[in-house]
Amino acid sequence: MDFITVAQASQIVLENTQSFGVETIPFQKSKGRILAEELKADRDFPPFDRVTMDGISIQGKTYEGGQREFPIESIQYAGEPQKTLVNLNSCVEIMTGASLPKNTDSVIRYEDVLLENGIATINEGISVFKNVHKKGHDRTKDEVLLPIGHQLKSADLAILATVGKNQVKVKKLPKIAIITSGDELVEVNQAPKSHQIRKSNIYAIASLLEPFATSVSQFHLKDELQKSIEMLQNIFEEYDAIILSGGVSAGKKDYLPQALEAVGAEKLFHKIQQRPGKPMWFGKKGKTLAFALPGNPVSSFMCAVRYVLPWLQKSIGIKIEPEMAILDQEVSFKPKLGYFLQVKLENKEGVLKAIPIEGGGSGDLANLSLNDAFLELPNQESPSFEKGSVYPIWRF
Amino acid sequence: MDFITVAQASQIVLENTQSFGVETIPFQKSKGRILAEELKADRDFPPFDRVTMDGISIQGKTYEGGQREFPIESIQYAGEPQKTLVNLNSCVEIMTGASLPKNTDSVIRYEDVLLENGIATINEGISVFKNVHKKGHDRTKDEVLLPIGHQLKSADLAILATVGKNQVKVKKLPKIAIITSGDELVEVNQAPKSHQIRKSNIYAIASLLEPFATSVSQFHLKDELQKSIEMLQNIFEEYDAIILSGGVSAGKKDYLPQALEAVGAEKLFHKIQQRPGKPMWFGKKGKTLAFALPGNPVSSFMCAVRYVLPWLQKSIGIKIEPEMAILDQEVSFKPKLGYFLQVKLENKEGVLKAIPIEGGGSGDLANLSLNDAFLELPNQESPSFEKGSVYPIWRF
Repeated sequence: MDFITVAQASQIVLENTQSFGVETIPFQKSKGRILAEELKADRDFPPFDRVTMDGISIQGKTYEGGQREFPIESIQYAGEPQKTLVNLNSCVEIMTGASLPKNTDSVIRYEDVLLENGIATINEGISVFKNVHKKGHDRTKDEVLLPIGHQLKSADLAILATVGKNQVKVKKLPKIAIITSGDELVEVNQAPKSHQIRKSNIYAIASLLEPFATSVSQFHLKDELQKSIEMLQNIFEEYDAIILSGGVSAGKKDYLPQALEAVGAEKLFHKIQQRPGKPMWFGKKGKTLAFALPGNPVSSFMCAVRYVLPWLQKSIGIKIEPEMAILDQEVSFKPKLGYFLQVKLENKEGVLKAIPIEGGGSGDLANLSLNDAFLELPNQESPSFEKGSVYPIWRF
Repeated sequence: MDFITVAQASQIVLENTQSFGVETIPFQKSKGRILAEELKADRDFPPFDRVTMDGISIQGKTYEGGQREFPIESIQYAGEPQKTLVNLNSCVEIMTGASLPKNTDSVIRYEDVLLENGIATINEGISVFKNVHKKGHDRTKDEVLLPIGHQLKSADLAILATVGKNQVKVKKLPKIAIITSGDELVEVNQAPKSHQIRKSNIYAIASLLEPFATSVSQFHLKDELQKSIEMLQNIFEEYDAIILSGGVSAGKKDYLPQALEAVGAEKLFHKIQQRPGKPMWFGKKGKTLAFALPGNPVSSFMCAVRYVLPWLQKSIGIKIEPEMAILDQEVSFKPKLGYFLQVKLENKEGVLKAIPIEGGGSGDLANLSLNDAFLELPNQESPSFEKGSVYPIWRF
């Protein structure tokens, strides 16, 4: 067997990532995107000595000196400019989120105070100099809050908002073309004849890649070399990545590797020591990468999950850290190939278990719905994979 | 302390889920949605005896009877109507995905055949009756492929396509209103004065809920009771769920619980034995649920992750199975409250570890960017939580 291993294929794919530039977008749309600028604090966080409890504010040393009764001099609401305590033996009634009034340093919460006739009487045994979130306590002005390369989560949108980042610079996503081939395929809204089937793979793959692409456009190639070449030429000029499904095996109408090379695409590999998905072809022309996946539904989907998605994620700056799971029962697999086993995942007390549900093989699309991930079993001497062994998973 | 525990609050929230009806949408847009109809096989899977290798097809018993040379009678491509082998001692050259020709039962792959002058000579030691994916092998006509209640993944879109489900019936998503309050808040594109801050929480919460909602609309209430009541009245009529951020504490302008009750909303609970997020209020008016969350950024976000999101997911039919993780270092927490600890998650050899990064408390928004989840530590006698203990996590 002269074709390459899963690890070699993965390495070649990940050595050929691309960058698609940067763009500026409204911050509300930036979830999942990768920051292309450093996000700095525009002022201290919090920007003022911020009251964290509803109650009264005083000078702490007056309480420590024995004073318990404090006339209420004024009220400081959140959203009002900072007030000043004029008589240092009085207090200011005060609300969460407000600026701490000038000349005060302690907030006593309502629960520890008796309010009567404009006088606040503070209970015994209270700690003073508390309930104030000091200006700059969390972050100081110009401190980096989010670095370049950070993938924005929901919570980060609040950080962008806080510093007034209405528009944010992020890494641009690619334009992707997905191309089906095979004369046996008809459209989803058509009634197939007995020897035909509807297009299907393409929709699963498009849905998988869409969150990481500007657009995913669909094309169909007839099983005919010359027309395929013309169409491919145009698609290579327009798109950043091309995913082809079908037409890469040894069949008489499997024109794709030939057509890809005819348009000037350089082959980086063809065929991988794996099941499913052995016939996969990978290459590039200029800055456009081409993944030609096998036509079997499970094979093409597996190759998209294992090679296309990590390539796409790494290209746009997402860190790829394969997760591991623990095989929950012994599995036997004899061929000298890497094996992508369909598994259901269960988190039992913090331990991630992989439970195999194998199904009918590379044509059995419906079996994918019962599973959560592919468990990547290595090509090894023994055909037996022990219960309790740990392998990488690729969720889908 | 007479207010309720985290477990009680969670139970009340989840007992008050709603259903928002069903709708029919294009199948390409159905990822993540919940099926509201049973998806059945429209015919057998595969729909014909499907060839799985490129090569030739023969009657297996001829090879078993000693015949090795087979004249090629015709070629059967994928996408062509099924052909028939006329001379039973001949063969049909055949491609992956094609119908197996009538009168044949075995496919011999090219690798095991010598093709010369129109004669296929098959190697010794070949297994026959192979490389055919039999009609109905995976699923039979009318078999249920996906049940009602199934959450559609990328791979399921291929199943919908295969059975011609161009439009699919799914559970409808709710219309959500998020309402900020607090006179200290200004818009993201405004320059705050020294005692003001920009709106922030609302964007994190909107981004968290958007994947599960038809729309998330934003409103702002001034800290003024009568106006709040009028606005709330209209919002309760228009929306399925209302999230309020701020205005639920004990402050003089914390009108929200009062305003909510004034418009006829029934209080289901107010205050939870937890940090952060103690002042949370939950109630309903008719079919509309209202979550009034504290104003502190981390508190409101935590309450959205722990209560609003599970309510929303359960309402639209997503199974909620809290994940568990293993605390990676000892943590001390004295107050007699449940504690939501910010943690970074690491999968080490299939074991999910929770590494605490505590930050500056409930105002320290930027600390959320360093973490992946809240670890839910229970209200217990001992203030010490041991390394190696297992607790539920709430990813964000």
